[in-house]
Amino acid sequence: VSFLDNRRYGPALEQTKAGAVIVHPDMAARVPTDTIAIVTLQPYAAWARVAALFHPLPPSTPGIHPSAIVDPTAEIHAEAQVGPYCVIEARASIGARCVLGAFVSIGKGVSIGADCRIAAHVSLSHAIIGERVVIYVGGRIGQEGFGFASTKSGFVSVPQLGRVLIEDDVEIGANTTIDRGSAGDTVVGRGTRIDNLVQIAHNVRIGRCCVIVAQAGIAGSTTIEDFVQVGGQAAIAGHLTVGQGTKIGAQAGVISDVAAGQFLVGSPAQPRRDFFRQVALLKRMMIRRLDKGKGSLLPD
Amino acid sequence: VSFLDNRRYGPALEQTKAGAVIVHPDMAARVPTDTIAIVTLQPYAAWARVAALFHPLPPSTPGIHPSAIVDPTAEIHAEAQVGPYCVIEARASIGARCVLGAFVSIGKGVSIGADCRIAAHVSLSHAIIGERVVIYVGGRIGQEGFGFASTKSGFVSVPQLGRVLIEDDVEIGANTTIDRGSAGDTVVGRGTRIDNLVQIAHNVRIGRCCVIVAQAGIAGSTTIEDFVQVGGQAAIAGHLTVGQGTKIGAQAGVISDVAAGQFLVGSPAQPRRDFFRQVALLKRMMIRRLDKGKGSLLPD
Amino acid sequence: VSFLDNRRYGPALEQTKAGAVIVHPDMAARVPTDTIAIVTLQPYAAWARVAALFHPLPPSTPGIHPSAIVDPTAEIHAEAQVGPYCVIEARASIGARCVLGAFVSIGKGVSIGADCRIAAHVSLSHAIIGERVVIYVGGRIGQEGFGFASTKSGFVSVPQLGRVLIEDDVEIGANTTIDRGSAGDTVVGRGTRIDNLVQIAHNVRIGRCCVIVAQAGIAGSTTIEDFVQVGGQAAIAGHLTVGQGTKIGAQAGVISDVAAGQFLVGSPAQPRRDFFRQVALLKRMMIRRLDKGKGSLLPD
Repeated sequence: VSFLDNRRYGPALEQTKAGAVIVHPDMAARVPTDTIAIVTLQPYAAWARVAALFHPLPPSTPGIHPSAIVDPTAEIHAEAQVGPYCVIEARASIGARCVLGAFVSIGKGVSIGADCRIAAHVSLSHAIIGERVVIYVGGRIGQEGFGFASTKSGFVSVPQLGRVLIEDDVEIGANTTIDRGSAGDTVVGRGTRIDNLVQIAHNVRIGRCCVIVAQAGIAGSTTIEDFVQVGGQAAIAGHLTVGQGTKIGAQAGVISDVAAGQFLVGSPAQPRRDFFRQVALLKRMMIRRLDKGKGSLLPD
Repeated sequence: VSFLDNRRYGPALEQTKAGAVIVHPDMAARVPTDTIAIVTLQPYAAWARVAALFHPLPPSTPGIHPSAIVDPTAEIHAEAQVGPYCVIEARASIGARCVLGAFVSIGKGVSIGADCRIAAHVSLSHAIIGERVVIYVGGRIGQEGFGFASTKSGFVSVPQLGRVLIEDDVEIGANTTIDRGSAGDTVVGRGTRIDNLVQIAHNVRIGRCCVIVAQAGIAGSTTIEDFVQVGGQAAIAGHLTVGQGTKIGAQAGVISDVAAGQFLVGSPAQPRRDFFRQVALLKRMMIRRLDKGKGSLLPD
Repeated sequence: VSFLDNRRYGPALEQTKAGAVIVHPDMAARVPTDTIAIVTLQPYAAWARVAALFHPLPPSTPGIHPSAIVDPTAEIHAEAQVGPYCVIEARASIGARCVLGAFVSIGKGVSIGADCRIAAHVSLSHAIIGERVVIYVGGRIGQEGFGFASTKSGFVSVPQLGRVLIEDDVEIGANTTIDRGSAGDTVVGRGTRIDNLVQIAHNVRIGRCCVIVAQAGIAGSTTIEDFVQVGGQAAIAGHLTVGQGTKIGAQAGVISDVAAGQFLVGSPAQPRRDFFRQVALLKRMMIRRLDKGKGSLLPD
């Protein structure tokens, strides 16, 4: 079973030797006669469901590995799996059917809901985690953020006193960092997906079903409303609001509030159409100058 | 007790229900009558000091966790705390009142001064660490940098022989990487603050009281003088010098030496004022072109 | 013994007190009389070889540390060294003379060839690793990538079923993340060097002897052909091909296919010469406008 969700690969479809292919109705006619066409308006979502049927998650093996160090006041659900060399501090709680990989460190009072998967080498502190949350290897959740005041005798650290609240169904990528709030909390809303190596600073509030692509960074106290998409390596400055459903392109730099439903790119970020108009205009001016024989303004 | 240090939140001040608020004299009149105004020229620094009084660091519990593996030639101060599953190699030394979290790995000969806090999952090798240094979870200090020569038969690694020197009162963020020097040392000067996911390449020398915001990268052998501020996701090329007190904006790309006291933004970086003039000029040219009905140069 | 490979440091050469200096023939005349000049067309490669003679890698100490947890079905070569607190799962295999640092986690069925060095805190899963591969501290290889379909009821994860194939002589930097393929495999070709904090998404195929500098990111299903160089913080969008020998500048943003042998910079990326022509043109227009007294378009 295979699938096609990108018109770019249309020619490959005609050569497929797959037993069945999940395709959009527009592409159904191009499926070879020896291949079964499974036709749906959402081929990628259908593939997700079919693949999950053929490749279910490995079942958990409840129990605490004998090498794990668990504080007596921590509450580990009997159906949870705690991997080798985990360290779980006082008053932490781990919900039913959670699976913790090796070397996970869980700080004092951290609460993890049911059915979470916490991969190897993750650290969690000062955090409340919902249900069905997935945190990939090396994720860092709940450490102190970048907070200090400048004085004549140097920087003075500002105590970071808030938590990280991760709502249900969130996924957080490998080596991503999410700092605890300074006074309030840092929040990641239900269903949001965060990729690898992302930085979420203290007091950031991310809404529901957002998508934050790899290496993006969101500075302190910024609010990202529901359904926002942030491209890879994009940066959003602090103390801003990005409105619902807005898309921020890869490598964009957002330095002011953004209304709902925008699509911004560039650094500083501006509406996508304006950005590409300016790119095209500048290129045209360069070509015109060269055509007039005026030289390139660059040393040869 | 709360504080206000950003005029943007002035209206919220008038609604506060806090018992006391630390404010600048300009804002004192806006504090509600039921709230005590603590007036100071530096509200954020005052907040740092007040909050630290109410929320002191948790006291350390001296001793070596029985699960830690400590080489017999390592010197651990009797007042230091070594967490579970730490691995400390030969001839390392850990100063008084240091606190090491779980899973910290300390390489051969590493020296750590008094009163440092080394969080869980940190690795240190080929490093000399001063006093009162804080390294957050997953920090990577002292590994070999990106050094190789190109030859006809492929790349040949250049042995990396230097150290990392971290001076007193430095803080280093989560999952940040600082490579050891190749021939000389990589140096981070006293009081400097480095955020999460920052890359500091081999032989970089950072001065005193610098600020390096998340996801910035500094390439090999570059010198950053004292009091420099580097914004998030900024990149500074190798073998450069950035002069004292200069500010590099977020996402800026510095490709040549920078004098002291500058404020550069953009990629390639240029003086802040010039950069925004050019942004405004290009936008104006685009609008003029559209007003003349010449089209956008973009396919519709 | 020292070396000089950067003309910028020519004046320093004349002051050197080194016993011997490896230099290019062009610089030989500037070596002081008390210093032996070792003259070669490739000073940096020669330095790599000389330094490696003086500073060989520390020899490995074969054996499995008693604290390591090794599944009985895993195959550890008798000459391999497995560090403290490693966790090695079922059917994994570790080749001759490999050295694994502390806290390395090796997932089910992972295969590692001979003479690899896997530093502390590394995680490997769903991966086949060649010979002489080096993975630095905190590298994350083989976790599930960023794959999900949008549906009316939220995101649905797409099972990630592929592997990561790392060919011989590859090096992978600290805290770098390489996701397993979704259906096919993610591949890093022989001899390629990847720096710290790099993101390699699922299904990316990187050719032989490429160089990927720190904090660069390559999005899903993109192909990077042989001998490509990607600068620091550069981003390459998904489903593209970057042709053989092409150079992508630091912070560049590649959003379409690139032919072989190009040198692109800027975001969006364009030929290097065009990019700097446009930078110069825009600056000149700004200056001309200011000279005419038209103001800067910026509020004062």
